[in-house]
Amino acid sequence: MEKKLSCTLAGGKVTDVLFANDIKDLSSHLSSYGNNVFWVFDNNSAALFSSLPEKRIVLESGERYKTMESLGKILSAALSFSSARDTRFIAFGGGVVCDMTALAASLYMRGARLTLVPTTLLCMVDASLGGKTAIDFEGGKNLVGTFYPADEVLISIDTLRTLPAKEYKCGLGEVVKHAFLAEGDELFRFMDENSQKIISRDKEVLTDMVFRSLVVKKTFIEADPTETRGIRSFLNLGHTFAHALESMGNYTVSHGEAVAWGISRALDAGVYAGVTDASMRDRALSMLKKYGFAVNYRIGRGDWLAYNQALAKDKKKISGSIKFVLLSDFGKPLLIPLEQKFIQSAVMQSAKISF
Amino acid sequence: MEKKLSCTLAGGKVTDVLFANDIKDLSSHLSSYGNNVFWVFDNNSAALFSSLPEKRIVLESGERYKTMESLGKILSAALSFSSARDTRFIAFGGGVVCDMTALAASLYMRGARLTLVPTTLLCMVDASLGGKTAIDFEGGKNLVGTFYPADEVLISIDTLRTLPAKEYKCGLGEVVKHAFLAEGDELFRFMDENSQKIISRDKEVLTDMVFRSLVVKKTFIEADPTETRGIRSFLNLGHTFAHALESMGNYTVSHGEAVAWGISRALDAGVYAGVTDASMRDRALSMLKKYGFAVNYRIGRGDWLAYNQALAKDKKKISGSIKFVLLSDFGKPLLIPLEQKFIQSAVMQSAKISF
Repeated sequence: MEKKLSCTLAGGKVTDVLFANDIKDLSSHLSSYGNNVFWVFDNNSAALFSSLPEKRIVLESGERYKTMESLGKILSAALSFSSARDTRFIAFGGGVVCDMTALAASLYMRGARLTLVPTTLLCMVDASLGGKTAIDFEGGKNLVGTFYPADEVLISIDTLRTLPAKEYKCGLGEVVKHAFLAEGDELFRFMDENSQKIISRDKEVLTDMVFRSLVVKKTFIEADPTETRGIRSFLNLGHTFAHALESMGNYTVSHGEAVAWGISRALDAGVYAGVTDASMRDRALSMLKKYGFAVNYRIGRGDWLAYNQALAKDKKKISGSIKFVLLSDFGKPLLIPLEQKFIQSAVMQSAKISF
Repeated sequence: MEKKLSCTLAGGKVTDVLFANDIKDLSSHLSSYGNNVFWVFDNNSAALFSSLPEKRIVLESGERYKTMESLGKILSAALSFSSARDTRFIAFGGGVVCDMTALAASLYMRGARLTLVPTTLLCMVDASLGGKTAIDFEGGKNLVGTFYPADEVLISIDTLRTLPAKEYKCGLGEVVKHAFLAEGDELFRFMDENSQKIISRDKEVLTDMVFRSLVVKKTFIEADPTETRGIRSFLNLGHTFAHALESMGNYTVSHGEAVAWGISRALDAGVYAGVTDASMRDRALSMLKKYGFAVNYRIGRGDWLAYNQALAKDKKKISGSIKFVLLSDFGKPLLIPLEQKFIQSAVMQSAKISF
């Protein structure tokens, strides 16, 4: 394992991100923890093992199990193995497993040790770094959680080899977001120029891409570890547009695809509002198209009301006004309210643009 | 309200402790928060009000409701009132209400605002300050929780007027503990000399006592906000002896009384182990007797095995050895393992002392 990144987060806690050369390298690092450990898998990630460690729990896979009930099961299993405050919780899986295990670790005796081993691209570049832990609660996504940075995040690019195409594309949506948020257009050009190698999952290029993506995330989360300074919210680029689409429920693409779509809409809205340069928007959309993101999709005129209502429910809403992350350039996000007409023009089919 | 104390705790968060002149003063401060609030009571504390605020939940009273189920009810009620991250959770009650509300506030959208209004002496001098939040879990007391310091702790000595005598004595057990942990013997002498006024709940003396007690707690928790440096564990003076007694379940005094008993045993054990001066122990025991603490109680010879097994289960046990907090003098605690014979001699009826 090679330490590639250290990130100082909530409570001054430092998360080290280590990259494995291969699965063997990962296994040997995990073995070095000894026996004072407790593993959390889901059905998908458990299937990657020929035999599972003894002190473990295997959860059902999927967002609909990201519940308080599952959290109780994790804590109960940890207790059944006589875990202590110095026991290391090891999450092995995607975002649901990592978010829930991290929450359980933060709660167990007020804080056990924590290692995250993300096995999806989305989790590698997003959920695993930053200290956010969560379960869903009564329809609210990630409504219940803590800030509890992992001690270590272990990344093995090899685990991406068997990731379903849809999941892989989902992760790319968040990488693309980081490409727009990075200072300068270096990561953007990397994504633009290496699209074929990235789509074919070239290991060397992927390693580079995940690392660069994490470096971008690091700058935002270190500057605002507990999301109180308005900086971390820039990482929601595309998300407000995306969440409303997802919550309408009639759009079947993944979260990452919704985010890529949401970024396109933020770029459009930015152009309409005079914030974003049209040529920058066009360059951005052309890159997104290379990855097969449906940047031209618009909601039907009949769905506008439902979409607008979904927008109003966004949990980032504070005292009445929804703010959107727009881009004035690469690495130059702004958080501003948007006039209704700009939102409508950006998301709706053949809306008349009359301004 | 008058700010008497500020305490910098986990994550650099500052808790302000404010004292109210009277109930009116407290009410007016609580009103100043406006309408973006969410109240948590239990049956006991709710009974102090002629009419309750609208956005509230009233829990069943008692430690046996300090569960994940109650936690879910608090979060669910908060959500039902459309609480946001900037909503202030207000806990009004004793330790169970304050610990659970604080945990819920730490989890709700990863951290809502938090005000604690302790209405028992125990909660005023102990649970309300320090950032520890908790529920019990599968038989483990406070096994699940977070470190999440309150923004404000509001103390109104008037709420102690109607506190049942047993509850009041319970709180005194923790004050006494702070008297032994304070640098010098100033708080000890205060407790020794003012015992009559304290027992009769003289408001002026009580205000002074609670304030002095919090000042002692502040020094230990500020030096070790997340209990990782071994300093905060000194606040467990008497607790290891006490917990084992409580968990045997055949001793019906309150937690605070058990702690006072445990301190007496720690003083005895300290004398036997050559750590504590006998004259200091005698002076200490004579003060404890003034408050009616059963310092002379010993467990029966037939209960020794059960007591010893209960000791072995203490959650402060790390990798095999239990450590006890002993006192070499006022304000000079030590955390050390104790030989079996010293433990036995300190807690057991007419054990032969042969060393």
